[in-house]
Amino acid sequence: MRIDKNQINSLNKKALPDHRESFEYISQRLEGKGISVQKLVQKVQSFQIAIPSWALGTGGTRFGRFPGGGEPRTLEEKIDDVGLLHALNAGSGAISLHIPWDIPKDIAQIKAHAASHKLLFDAVNSNTFQDQADQEHSYKFGSLCHTDAQVRKQAVNHNLEVIRHGEALGSKSLTVWLADGSSFPGQMNFRKALQRTLDSLKEIYAGMPDDWKMFIEYKPYEPYFYHTVIQDWGTSHLLASQLGERAYTLVDLGHHLPNTNIEQIVATLMMQGKLGGFHFNDSKFGDDDLTVGAMKPYQLFLIFNELVEGMQDKESRNPYPAWMIDASHNLKDPMEDLLQSVEAIQLAYAQALLVDRQALEDAREANDPVLAQEILQDAFRTDVRPLIAEARMQADAALDPVAAFRKLNVRENLVRERGKKSMATGL
Amino acid sequence: MRIDKNQINSLNKKALPDHRESFEYISQRLEGKGISVQKLVQKVQSFQIAIPSWALGTGGTRFGRFPGGGEPRTLEEKIDDVGLLHALNAGSGAISLHIPWDIPKDIAQIKAHAASHKLLFDAVNSNTFQDQADQEHSYKFGSLCHTDAQVRKQAVNHNLEVIRHGEALGSKSLTVWLADGSSFPGQMNFRKALQRTLDSLKEIYAGMPDDWKMFIEYKPYEPYFYHTVIQDWGTSHLLASQLGERAYTLVDLGHHLPNTNIEQIVATLMMQGKLGGFHFNDSKFGDDDLTVGAMKPYQLFLIFNELVEGMQDKESRNPYPAWMIDASHNLKDPMEDLLQSVEAIQLAYAQALLVDRQALEDAREANDPVLAQEILQDAFRTDVRPLIAEARMQADAALDPVAAFRKLNVRENLVRERGKKSMATGL
Amino acid sequence: MRIDKNQINSLNKKALPDHRESFEYISQRLEGKGISVQKLVQKVQSFQIAIPSWALGTGGTRFGRFPGGGEPRTLEEKIDDVGLLHALNAGSGAISLHIPWDIPKDIAQIKAHAASHKLLFDAVNSNTFQDQADQEHSYKFGSLCHTDAQVRKQAVNHNLEVIRHGEALGSKSLTVWLADGSSFPGQMNFRKALQRTLDSLKEIYAGMPDDWKMFIEYKPYEPYFYHTVIQDWGTSHLLASQLGERAYTLVDLGHHLPNTNIEQIVATLMMQGKLGGFHFNDSKFGDDDLTVGAMKPYQLFLIFNELVEGMQDKESRNPYPAWMIDASHNLKDPMEDLLQSVEAIQLAYAQALLVDRQALEDAREANDPVLAQEILQDAFRTDVRPLIAEARMQADAALDPVAAFRKLNVRENLVRERGKKSMATGL
Amino acid sequence: MRIDKNQINSLNKKALPDHRESFEYISQRLEGKGISVQKLVQKVQSFQIAIPSWALGTGGTRFGRFPGGGEPRTLEEKIDDVGLLHALNAGSGAISLHIPWDIPKDIAQIKAHAASHKLLFDAVNSNTFQDQADQEHSYKFGSLCHTDAQVRKQAVNHNLEVIRHGEALGSKSLTVWLADGSSFPGQMNFRKALQRTLDSLKEIYAGMPDDWKMFIEYKPYEPYFYHTVIQDWGTSHLLASQLGERAYTLVDLGHHLPNTNIEQIVATLMMQGKLGGFHFNDSKFGDDDLTVGAMKPYQLFLIFNELVEGMQDKESRNPYPAWMIDASHNLKDPMEDLLQSVEAIQLAYAQALLVDRQALEDAREANDPVLAQEILQDAFRTDVRPLIAEARMQADAALDPVAAFRKLNVRENLVRERGKKSMATGL
Repeated sequence: MRIDKNQINSLNKKALPDHRESFEYISQRLEGKGISVQKLVQKVQSFQIAIPSWALGTGGTRFGRFPGGGEPRTLEEKIDDVGLLHALNAGSGAISLHIPWDIPKDIAQIKAHAASHKLLFDAVNSNTFQDQADQEHSYKFGSLCHTDAQVRKQAVNHNLEVIRHGEALGSKSLTVWLADGSSFPGQMNFRKALQRTLDSLKEIYAGMPDDWKMFIEYKPYEPYFYHTVIQDWGTSHLLASQLGERAYTLVDLGHHLPNTNIEQIVATLMMQGKLGGFHFNDSKFGDDDLTVGAMKPYQLFLIFNELVEGMQDKESRNPYPAWMIDASHNLKDPMEDLLQSVEAIQLAYAQALLVDRQALEDAREANDPVLAQEILQDAFRTDVRPLIAEARMQADAALDPVAAFRKLNVRENLVRERGKKSMATGL
Repeated sequence: MRIDKNQINSLNKKALPDHRESFEYISQRLEGKGISVQKLVQKVQSFQIAIPSWALGTGGTRFGRFPGGGEPRTLEEKIDDVGLLHALNAGSGAISLHIPWDIPKDIAQIKAHAASHKLLFDAVNSNTFQDQADQEHSYKFGSLCHTDAQVRKQAVNHNLEVIRHGEALGSKSLTVWLADGSSFPGQMNFRKALQRTLDSLKEIYAGMPDDWKMFIEYKPYEPYFYHTVIQDWGTSHLLASQLGERAYTLVDLGHHLPNTNIEQIVATLMMQGKLGGFHFNDSKFGDDDLTVGAMKPYQLFLIFNELVEGMQDKESRNPYPAWMIDASHNLKDPMEDLLQSVEAIQLAYAQALLVDRQALEDAREANDPVLAQEILQDAFRTDVRPLIAEARMQADAALDPVAAFRKLNVRENLVRERGKKSMATGL
Repeated sequence: MRIDKNQINSLNKKALPDHRESFEYISQRLEGKGISVQKLVQKVQSFQIAIPSWALGTGGTRFGRFPGGGEPRTLEEKIDDVGLLHALNAGSGAISLHIPWDIPKDIAQIKAHAASHKLLFDAVNSNTFQDQADQEHSYKFGSLCHTDAQVRKQAVNHNLEVIRHGEALGSKSLTVWLADGSSFPGQMNFRKALQRTLDSLKEIYAGMPDDWKMFIEYKPYEPYFYHTVIQDWGTSHLLASQLGERAYTLVDLGHHLPNTNIEQIVATLMMQGKLGGFHFNDSKFGDDDLTVGAMKPYQLFLIFNELVEGMQDKESRNPYPAWMIDASHNLKDPMEDLLQSVEAIQLAYAQALLVDRQALEDAREANDPVLAQEILQDAFRTDVRPLIAEARMQADAALDPVAAFRKLNVRENLVRERGKKSMATGL
Repeated sequence: MRIDKNQINSLNKKALPDHRESFEYISQRLEGKGISVQKLVQKVQSFQIAIPSWALGTGGTRFGRFPGGGEPRTLEEKIDDVGLLHALNAGSGAISLHIPWDIPKDIAQIKAHAASHKLLFDAVNSNTFQDQADQEHSYKFGSLCHTDAQVRKQAVNHNLEVIRHGEALGSKSLTVWLADGSSFPGQMNFRKALQRTLDSLKEIYAGMPDDWKMFIEYKPYEPYFYHTVIQDWGTSHLLASQLGERAYTLVDLGHHLPNTNIEQIVATLMMQGKLGGFHFNDSKFGDDDLTVGAMKPYQLFLIFNELVEGMQDKESRNPYPAWMIDASHNLKDPMEDLLQSVEAIQLAYAQALLVDRQALEDAREANDPVLAQEILQDAFRTDVRPLIAEARMQADAALDPVAAFRKLNVRENLVRERGKKSMATGL
């Protein structure tokens, strides 16, 4: 299934009068404050969020999985799904592949396929947290940190292979999420495991093309329940610093202990020029991988407040970060979930762009927390939905993507094409 | 494979001089304090912990599973495994079945098989958190709490069927763990979901034989990540109170928010006569389902301190609780893990029995927290391993069960019998 | 200092054109959806939040306190401060007294003073968590739960005295926050402590006038760090159920373990007819007592979503709850902090009133979490500030209370009247 | 009051037969495993833990303080109290001063006084989290991170003054605990606050004598409740790395988010040669500052397991860490609490020394978590109390320090000398 511009235009037409009204109202309010609405709209348009190939199927927990229908069966179909999303929201113009789930067979054909959807290939992801059927050594007790040099070698080689696939597709970065850790006190030598991880990463780093970046994720627990080798941003930053200039920390919103001040971590990493990328999702308890903005939209806004400030900081050496959604769709239709997620990200970004930075800095210099809060909450409380809708409409996408998804019967069409019991590869 | 008394005796013989020495030392110390060591040993012997049928295979997480070999392929083989454990430690003389994973075909044969291992059938467990292949309605959006009366009916009927299976085997209780909940704000009406759950439980309660008990678990999150219908002991207690005299709360150690004072919950429930049973495991982050005592042995001791006090309380209406291990063995050999767990439980129980209760109450009355701590820690710091070993030896079990398991090549034998790729049913 | 209607009117006049514009816009949008804006405005107006007498001075932590100036030195001045707030926001028309910090000497005069500010006396609060200079027995090791009957008697009598003071002033409820607990395992007998607490509460309950209610707070920790007698809603509910019909649970937002689903607790309590009152504040780590809405505004909205649903439920036996702010103002000007808090509460309330309940129930019945989220977030994302401002303006209060507070130099005036080093009594 | 060797000897004499018996038993067991008991005893003897001067009085919370009697009124009396502790346990041979609470007037006299108790002066501690009466600028909104250069200068100068006091007394290190942070989103610019902190620390670092070390604490929250400038080990390590070779991270056990794997942090810091010191206490919820070992003795053991391994690592550049207790004694007698704490530390240290490191490494290499756990728990379950008692007795201290403290009526004597209402300076 492909969505036609005309289909979207015709849906938009009905909603247009209402949209016009609200967009004009907000435009007038913001212009009155000296804010260029068209610049805002352009910024939102150019903010593109990569969709991971594994997020297009139904996720699950260790207690079970309740699959939906019409899930993509091949890499091509995953690209199709991201293409559909991008047609609807004009904000998800990239796909992030996961090897070995998405090994492309015919590179040229896959590139053309993605291009036909106006999609780029974002960071490629390696997987050393599961055993593949044909694998010689098991990762049960770790991969890059393993006590056995053979296992480490296998894991390093897998990462090098992932880089080769990515290079062929035009990716420019490798994301390493390392589950490696232990579940029992005593099981692993913390120090040696970290040293071996560093040594393995050095080999991978050396195998990256010169214009590539490495993104190193951290996570406090799961799938191991006592110790994770890269347990926090401090450890990731330590590794990235020792690896070299093109190694960076990647922040996944769900990978923190309860009550962590994530926005402060973001600010610190950007200050050090070491924030490489971002995985968006939301959570209440752990790495719940829920729809972005479903649980703590104000936290998301505060994080974007730091991202915007960091990106506007002229002294910063931090590169433009890679943006990706990383969620698990256990209950919602994966595509609807992704549409809601992209919208939540765009709203938080737009609100952060509204913050009067000079006034905020003045309030900070004056140690006036009441005023600082008023400034931030003024931005957050502003209903910026018409701005996002306008950004989409100007890019030929839907004023209301979720509604369009339903009105165009996207899922029903996919079920018809792929069957009720199709199963996405991956998690 | 069966373990012969003689095999164990011959292993014990070598370790006997060392054991004698340490047992005599501790006996002399304790008798010097007026404690009857033989009574202690008997209490440990009569403390039997049920093994759940699903704990005999390798567990996993949503990120993968790394199976071992020789896992039990049938209910008979699961019973065999528990029999092997009981032969080694004389402390796990019961098995807790999970329906539909363990539906017995020939009741008489299964009962005889269990009896040949000296095993009883503990509480039976229903499962409405997964969809079975032949199931009419899905539990994706709940079971006993579902909006659709048809789904609730199906789930109620399943529980009634579980009771029938349990009755045939001689079980006397039903454990209901209800995953039911929601992952997104707004998804479910809290109030209606709780009301429907209560109504469904009433139907199940009405279907229990007169001498049966119902145990209601609670859990704050997972597999749903926003709301769980029975989120805490307060909710479970509310339901149990409204259901009737034979409905009780069941405490699973891993089912609490960070930092919960679990021992206080245990004390409160026993005070109300409403603690029905216990699921043992250990955890650092969430429902990690690790080996009992692997992470917080002092907390385990404090819990047993309350259990012992509650069981000794003559005014208490609380029945003798049901004890079960509920863990997931992702890395360790499941049987070795269970042997370590049973030992940790026995140690904590024995240490709690050592607490000088009169002195403790005196210190409490005097508001002397220094002395109260000295009294508790004196018990906890005592090396009671020889008492447990003696309890085992007197019951023809192994002085050191894990060592015996390895010396007798139990796993190797099971792999030979069942194959390297056998797969336990269930989680 | 008193604020004159004219002063406010003249401030409002300048902001009026801007307000008119935004109010008309939102009115038109909402009326277009069939929502009566004037009814909304009236509901917001009639929602009155009590200010606790102790929140008018600078708070602190165990590490220190950084007082501001112009703090109220007497009960009269505390009433004056609440009067100033109510003049500014027309939403804080009640004061909640804390005994012994606020014992009124001349009842008639105090009542007249409050009436002159159009203030009512909300729940009275007892204090058995601190020792007063002239006190016979210490509460170091508890009050209502104490091992010593003399201490319990003293604490019961104090509560009875608080009731007498409240009765004289026209209060209709007693809030009992019991710090009682222990900091070390073993220190206290959980069971006996709970029993003694229940017995003491029974004496207090018996001493309440027939038209009074008792509100029982719960809290997991602090000032004790191992065990708190009333640790959670389950324990509070247990006590309230055993005390009688006029005993209720009171929910303080900061009194929960990390990640607790508070809105679910609210729903459950209202379902049982046992939610008596609410203490508003916000927090990131523990009982941080920050400005309401400063940290998790979406959670606040979700809680109001349950409150509104519970209050609209015609079958509910739950009385109209008591609303109070309970915060600690360590850094912000206490009065500015309270103005921000009241506004945040009103915003969340108004947003919850916007939720299309029929559509939400339909989405729930259809198990459509995507749609349920769209419905909730549509309400939350709506900029309802003009509605709140209108509610204030119609009640002769300020369109922008914080701005008015500053423009009218309220704090400067109070410092002039009371001095730079005045010190509020209490925390 | 001073405790005489003869007093202790006469108390020990009564307990000696019992001690001999248990010490001989454990000695025989350990020697049988090839462990030199006398070496163990010596290691325990040479492990000295500093007592902070502020821990000798009753602590409190924001809700109140319940002081005991006989608290030290002067620096001399604080030194006396540590002297009494050291006489009883021979394990607390150092005192750590806090400026401005403990500014020595007559250096020579104070040094002689400490020497008469065989006490050394450990790290000195600065205080920029409270305002002193005569202070020009307030630290309400930060100190080393403050927006105002004047405030930063004042805080830097204070630290330089602390160094001068320490130098005079023979200290060799400065501990900087920086409360600096903010309580509201937006209040502070994270990046600028961290930069200003680094700049201020550079000035202090430059002012340290060449043989001094700087220890930088971290803490996630309290007294600020949104953001703390040095929120975690990663931030402390970043600062220490940028400051220079003699700047180190200091770990306080209570300064972590829920569920943090602290032992892993310890291992990582030692691996980097950057663990400077340790503050011991215990906690259940936050920075509860309870008696060491009162809550999580196994965690304490696991931490010592890393410390011992790190100290034995010949390739490590990490200096010998500074050990200090940092607790708050709200309920227990402060001196009894400290005696219990020192004992808990010594027990954990001795148990960690018992770990068979070669066997542990072998189990790790073999990926055998069952065996690794057996090895660790074998050490932890060993009753090493006789070893600690022996270490004390050989150093003329008490076999049972808490019992001796009570039998010698130490507190009663201090009350007689100092009065019932004496009040320790500081927290």
